[in-house]
Amino acid sequence: MTTPSFSPASALPQWLRHYQKAWLAGDITAGLIVTVMLIPQSLAYALLAGLPPEVGLYASILPIVAYALLGSSMTLAVGPVAVASLMTASALAPFAVAGTTEYVTLAVQLSLISGAMLLAFGALRLGFLAYFLSHPVISGFITGSAVVIAIGQLKHLLGVRVPSSSTWETLRGLVYALPQTNLTTLALGLGSLVFLVLARRYLSGWLVRVGLPAKVADLVTKLAPMAAVLVSIAVVALWRLDINAKVSVVGVVPQGLPQLGLELPGFTTIGQLWLPALLIALVGFVESVSVAQSLALKRQQRIAPNKELLGLGAANVASALSGGYPVTGGFARSVVNFAAGANTPLAGVVSAALMAVVIASMTGAFYYLPHAALAATIIVAVVSLVDFDTLKEAWHYDRADALSLIATALGVITMGVEVGILMGVALSLGVLVWRSSRPHMAVVGRVPGTEHFRNVERHTVETVPGLLALRVDESLFFANATALEDRIEALIHQDPTVRRVLLVCSAVNQVDTTALGVLTELNTSLAKRGITLELAEVKGPVMDRLQHTALGLALQGRVFQSVHAAFSRPGTA
Amino acid sequence: MTTPSFSPASALPQWLRHYQKAWLAGDITAGLIVTVMLIPQSLAYALLAGLPPEVGLYASILPIVAYALLGSSMTLAVGPVAVASLMTASALAPFAVAGTTEYVTLAVQLSLISGAMLLAFGALRLGFLAYFLSHPVISGFITGSAVVIAIGQLKHLLGVRVPSSSTWETLRGLVYALPQTNLTTLALGLGSLVFLVLARRYLSGWLVRVGLPAKVADLVTKLAPMAAVLVSIAVVALWRLDINAKVSVVGVVPQGLPQLGLELPGFTTIGQLWLPALLIALVGFVESVSVAQSLALKRQQRIAPNKELLGLGAANVASALSGGYPVTGGFARSVVNFAAGANTPLAGVVSAALMAVVIASMTGAFYYLPHAALAATIIVAVVSLVDFDTLKEAWHYDRADALSLIATALGVITMGVEVGILMGVALSLGVLVWRSSRPHMAVVGRVPGTEHFRNVERHTVETVPGLLALRVDESLFFANATALEDRIEALIHQDPTVRRVLLVCSAVNQVDTTALGVLTELNTSLAKRGITLELAEVKGPVMDRLQHTALGLALQGRVFQSVHAAFSRPGTA
Repeated sequence: MTTPSFSPASALPQWLRHYQKAWLAGDITAGLIVTVMLIPQSLAYALLAGLPPEVGLYASILPIVAYALLGSSMTLAVGPVAVASLMTASALAPFAVAGTTEYVTLAVQLSLISGAMLLAFGALRLGFLAYFLSHPVISGFITGSAVVIAIGQLKHLLGVRVPSSSTWETLRGLVYALPQTNLTTLALGLGSLVFLVLARRYLSGWLVRVGLPAKVADLVTKLAPMAAVLVSIAVVALWRLDINAKVSVVGVVPQGLPQLGLELPGFTTIGQLWLPALLIALVGFVESVSVAQSLALKRQQRIAPNKELLGLGAANVASALSGGYPVTGGFARSVVNFAAGANTPLAGVVSAALMAVVIASMTGAFYYLPHAALAATIIVAVVSLVDFDTLKEAWHYDRADALSLIATALGVITMGVEVGILMGVALSLGVLVWRSSRPHMAVVGRVPGTEHFRNVERHTVETVPGLLALRVDESLFFANATALEDRIEALIHQDPTVRRVLLVCSAVNQVDTTALGVLTELNTSLAKRGITLELAEVKGPVMDRLQHTALGLALQGRVFQSVHAAFSRPGTA
Repeated sequence: MTTPSFSPASALPQWLRHYQKAWLAGDITAGLIVTVMLIPQSLAYALLAGLPPEVGLYASILPIVAYALLGSSMTLAVGPVAVASLMTASALAPFAVAGTTEYVTLAVQLSLISGAMLLAFGALRLGFLAYFLSHPVISGFITGSAVVIAIGQLKHLLGVRVPSSSTWETLRGLVYALPQTNLTTLALGLGSLVFLVLARRYLSGWLVRVGLPAKVADLVTKLAPMAAVLVSIAVVALWRLDINAKVSVVGVVPQGLPQLGLELPGFTTIGQLWLPALLIALVGFVESVSVAQSLALKRQQRIAPNKELLGLGAANVASALSGGYPVTGGFARSVVNFAAGANTPLAGVVSAALMAVVIASMTGAFYYLPHAALAATIIVAVVSLVDFDTLKEAWHYDRADALSLIATALGVITMGVEVGILMGVALSLGVLVWRSSRPHMAVVGRVPGTEHFRNVERHTVETVPGLLALRVDESLFFANATALEDRIEALIHQDPTVRRVLLVCSAVNQVDTTALGVLTELNTSLAKRGITLELAEVKGPVMDRLQHTALGLALQGRVFQSVHAAFSRPGTA
């Protein structure tokens, strides 16, 4: 609403320029609580992505600050998330061995490419790209990914090594490796898992009963993963289970802030990573925007999709600059951030600062952290992403959408995240074209004594002999133009007395080149048979474009404002 | 119109059961003339496909008969065509060396897979699959293919050997090979080319001047390629240019009818060929249907797309059974067939029988046929496929369509037929989603003293304080649901007095699961702010589906028959 001023201060984000003291307490509290969630999550998701733990920590500092400067959400918590971590692992698997320096370099470059794409989309205002993904496809994708992730973590729970090039191979490997199960690891993993499940289900209610306010109880519940991490570290350290029982632990995490720097990807790398980078960018964007939007609406705030592209793009570039991997807005942490009272992205900056302190001085504490405990936090986190509600809803409302959802989920599980989501997009578009290729059309007649026109099959209406009035309830374009032509020809075939074909265009919002060609051809071919093509109720924008075409010129004097005008044309009425 | 009777005769196609003597003369004449076109074309297109000449001849017998039994067009001439031949060459190039037995086997299997797909699509009534290709994409594809084909034939005109893995490589190879040009070959090729171009341009006019009826003159002109073939055979044979000047000739063409038989493709072959087979099937189907339809309409006949799928599918399976390669309906031969007076597919059967005679007894005549003369007929045939008219029209009417056309053509030329057409389909769909993601929406008010409602920005209308009436001129689905939500939130932000949001759905033909989710969320989020969501003019089919959803239940009593009813709701009017 205010005119933009070009003072140096205007380079700062609006929330910072107009920061109010009253916001500070909420921002600091939220920043603190989110950090306690973020530490175990960033370690766990790095494990999931096949990266050393410090890469997860690095991705949790600068990206948050970059988003705070450019993003439009007040409460979105950016950083490592489960699905993007899985997509990273799947993108890099063909080109490097997980955990190697080469693998880490590729992960950093993946983040850079993805970030650069998001920035470019933002600059070009291509927010609409996200709309290629329908809700059912996203839901199927997330559910499928959750299953793949959970299955992939089972090896950490069992303490065995299993190849994981595909879901089937992982499952087969697990069965064969079952006899090698490390029982101590399994006990730690299952212990964490049971604790986390119970905490999620009962802790909040119990805390309320002992007197905590419901909101506080909910927040404390979110800290359960940190408790599991701390307890399992203590147990392993106390009995040196890493040596005495060969429990796999995180080990040495390099201490110190990440070095800033950047190795630009070569053409080969770009050729290998552009598609996964694009998919990570799009999926991350769609997820972030939907989380940010639903939180913003609760406080009457607005999200600007193109600013989100810039914010997420900057976050990923910042991640690459500081040795991190692809990040995006996470659902769980954003909700906690919001509930803990975050008023502005300062909450994020607070948690970035705390993460910096942790990395600079406390990474030694993670030495004894067992992988099994991290796997348990991952499994519990992703199982809540499995979404049967959307499937149930889609199944009842729209079978085609439900089938796209199932196909996408199965595609992800059996063929991997990339093939799965591409299949989902292809299916969404396929369903769209299929639906549009069968437009609803109705022959209409006049409701006696009125100027209203209705479907002749549903109402008692008057028609004019020789006049066929057909209403098309869809824009005309390549997928349905032929169907319209077929219908008209069939109707004329049924009634050879037809001399005028009147297309009622009240629901035609667009006519593309293909449909224009079909109509032009139809007009010529009808004319040869002594039949005129006429239009009625053509919308302004459609008429503007038609006017200067061959069809527009040929139809002069045969385009009517209303069906009524066409019906009462002198000489035929 | 007649009830189907299940006598044995009903297995025969309708045209055969009701065959009239009066049709015979036309059918025989057309069959004869088409055969004279078909002989040089089937030899030339086999050359283009990288196949021995007899394969082209084989593809010109049984497929025609199969189509005659199952297809729905009375005049479509099925057989080898230029674009499908190029697609065959491009599909097989990665897997076998042109001309080898292995290559021929793969070509036969490609035809089988493509035919099986067409039959399956026909059985499943999937004719709509063809609608994924918009006219601009088809036009760009054909133009691009014509350029690729013409460039690929230049080596035959020059009489040089050039690798042809890509257009660039072919062009570079031609430049390097220029010094090796065989001048005799070039003379034969250029001679044929000049003759064919002149014949195409002037022969018909000249024949009319010497007294022939215009129609006959047109038909005779179509026989020019046969004349070029005969003359060049005579010239080569007379001076034994194949030996004396090393002119490349067709050589020995095995005499005798094709052996029936079939080597079923293995899984590896199916994996390699399914995508090109699908593309050949779709492109062939789209082209055939559009040719068949435009001819049928001239005689008030109808084409049944699903029967066409069966007809073309059977033709391709028949081609595979008799050692042929992928076939489809050709434009030029169909037009000649029609003009020469073909009344039924019997014309095709006649030309199949004549082809059988040629193969059984006259293949020796082709020994001296120079490749250069065939290349000239191919170049002249495909140059006429280059289509600038559609580009010009699209450029003026719809820039996005024009750009899809150009991108598809350039894609085919620079990256090959498969990538090119896939790019074109992706672009068509991209443009479709992009357009749909920016639906036209208008805030409407009442035209004073009427029950009509118009855009507040274009007309002087009355509004009701606190009531925001928004008309959406598009079906609501995944690509545009968010845009609607954004618009509503922006409008509410501008006018905080809004208490009722009325969605006018007169142009909403469908609401998919994604849009349903967005509307449900919007309703909840508006309700929290004391704003009600209301609907008006919801179409019957849309309302039927909405009714049983959570949104439908939540909106009970807030769905109005008309905008007028919503505006005059007691208490707010």
